[in-house]
Amino acid sequence: MEAARLGAAGAAGLHKAFCPKAARELVGNVDAFLFDCDGGSSDLVWSGVIWKGEKLIEGVTKALQALRSMGKKVGFVTNNSTKSRKQYVEKFRGLGISVHEDEIYPSSFGAAMYLKVNNFPQDKKVYAIGGDGILEEMSFAGYTCLGVTKDANKKMELKRGFKFEHDKSVGAVVVGLDPYINYYKIQYATMCIRENPGCLFIATDRDAVGPLTDVQEWPGTGSMVGAICGSTQKEPIIVGKPATFMMEFLLKRFNMSTSRMCMVGDSFPDVLFGQNSGCKTILVLSGV
Amino acid sequence: MEAARLGAAGAAGLHKAFCPKAARELVGNVDAFLFDCDGGSSDLVWSGVIWKGEKLIEGVTKALQALRSMGKKVGFVTNNSTKSRKQYVEKFRGLGISVHEDEIYPSSFGAAMYLKVNNFPQDKKVYAIGGDGILEEMSFAGYTCLGVTKDANKKMELKRGFKFEHDKSVGAVVVGLDPYINYYKIQYATMCIRENPGCLFIATDRDAVGPLTDVQEWPGTGSMVGAICGSTQKEPIIVGKPATFMMEFLLKRFNMSTSRMCMVGDSFPDVLFGQNSGCKTILVLSGV
Repeated sequence: MEAARLGAAGAAGLHKAFCPKAARELVGNVDAFLFDCDGGSSDLVWSGVIWKGEKLIEGVTKALQALRSMGKKVGFVTNNSTKSRKQYVEKFRGLGISVHEDEIYPSSFGAAMYLKVNNFPQDKKVYAIGGDGILEEMSFAGYTCLGVTKDANKKMELKRGFKFEHDKSVGAVVVGLDPYINYYKIQYATMCIRENPGCLFIATDRDAVGPLTDVQEWPGTGSMVGAICGSTQKEPIIVGKPATFMMEFLLKRFNMSTSRMCMVGDSFPDVLFGQNSGCKTILVLSGV
Repeated sequence: MEAARLGAAGAAGLHKAFCPKAARELVGNVDAFLFDCDGGSSDLVWSGVIWKGEKLIEGVTKALQALRSMGKKVGFVTNNSTKSRKQYVEKFRGLGISVHEDEIYPSSFGAAMYLKVNNFPQDKKVYAIGGDGILEEMSFAGYTCLGVTKDANKKMELKRGFKFEHDKSVGAVVVGLDPYINYYKIQYATMCIRENPGCLFIATDRDAVGPLTDVQEWPGTGSMVGAICGSTQKEPIIVGKPATFMMEFLLKRFNMSTSRMCMVGDSFPDVLFGQNSGCKTILVLSGV
């Protein structure tokens, strides 16, 4: 475990890190670099290591080119579950960076992979609180996903005799960042977890802050997860940072040991994510 | 501490408890009986010790008359924050029971009394997630209360540059059961707690279940509180059962020691509430 702190902001700082001798040594000892690229939904705000606001952080393109030319693998790991990998590729393209879908690891994808890795049956459904990124990743993985934006405007008339029905074939509830959280969704998720035998409760992450606009902080996935914990009195399986699921998944995919990986992030959860898994970490000082 | 378990349902069982010799002894040693009367919002469902559905539990009127004729004090303590004491008096009247406002202790009133007891300044405002019971009790106590049903349909356009404004004079956030919970309310409460120096975070209770209709269980205040804990990473002050604030308040009001009080409830939180305070407890088996 080795945490390097770069004084300059974002990937500009990261790029500088490749110049000094110490940084060259680090690069020499690492085969894969994982980058945080935390950003918000709705194409609004992106802050952190790769972009900030709508702008690419200076030096990012050069740094990525340099790493690739040295034969290093790169991966982008984010707790933002509102987008799918496909949507991220578009986002990168819009900023002039060419990345492959297989290099992007948002927690929406993480949730789908958690189900895959654990042989979640294809005939079971997923109920999701969150954005369409989760819906897309679940569909790519072959799962039927209920909820998400389809339930954004659902209301109920809470009168005597009213019975709330839920799908008994839901075998997993996935909770991600959802600015359209409502009581209908909370009740749906709660009933699946309470009443469907063996139903999984998965959180994409538990971040307190969700970067939805560029002006201020917004309640993060931690709010949606807290609401479901409060009614079910259960704790979720977390697939995003700083939990280690994504790192374990990446190690298998990259066929690599942790000592040859380095996580570059702008927040303590990023550093924890790296350190929890025993890989090298770099903290850039542009973020949370 | 002494927990009596009554086999028969609700207050019918309670009434029976006053017949055997052991029960007479209990009554002889107790000067005040506190009853749970858990019920739902919107005049929908009431279950537990005093009523169940829309019906008074058999024997309740007789039992209350018997206690009053023996000079015992009675109090009704509920975690249901959706109604005020005034609204409860009406509810009791509709069921043919005459009670005084001063005998009713819903957690909406508890939250207002918590502020009073702690000298919360009158020029500070309260932001509440919950029903109009909280609004009414705050108004009776002389406080300005924002939020509640007024924010039920609030929406935001989360576009670039949008800035969410909140009242800097809010000095306390109160969270109760709210079937109209939304992201606007979560953001409002979160910003007050995060940005207003010294802002209190008060929960009426943290119950997992809210008895909103008579057919099934619904997410309780625990959901709304969990959402705010998730975004603020703070823990609330809890005024409802099983926390001891209401008991301490009642002991002062009744000018009585705990050993002369007995809590009659239909749930373990009720029993805990009694036992946490060191008073006698009776669990009736009609409830949660």
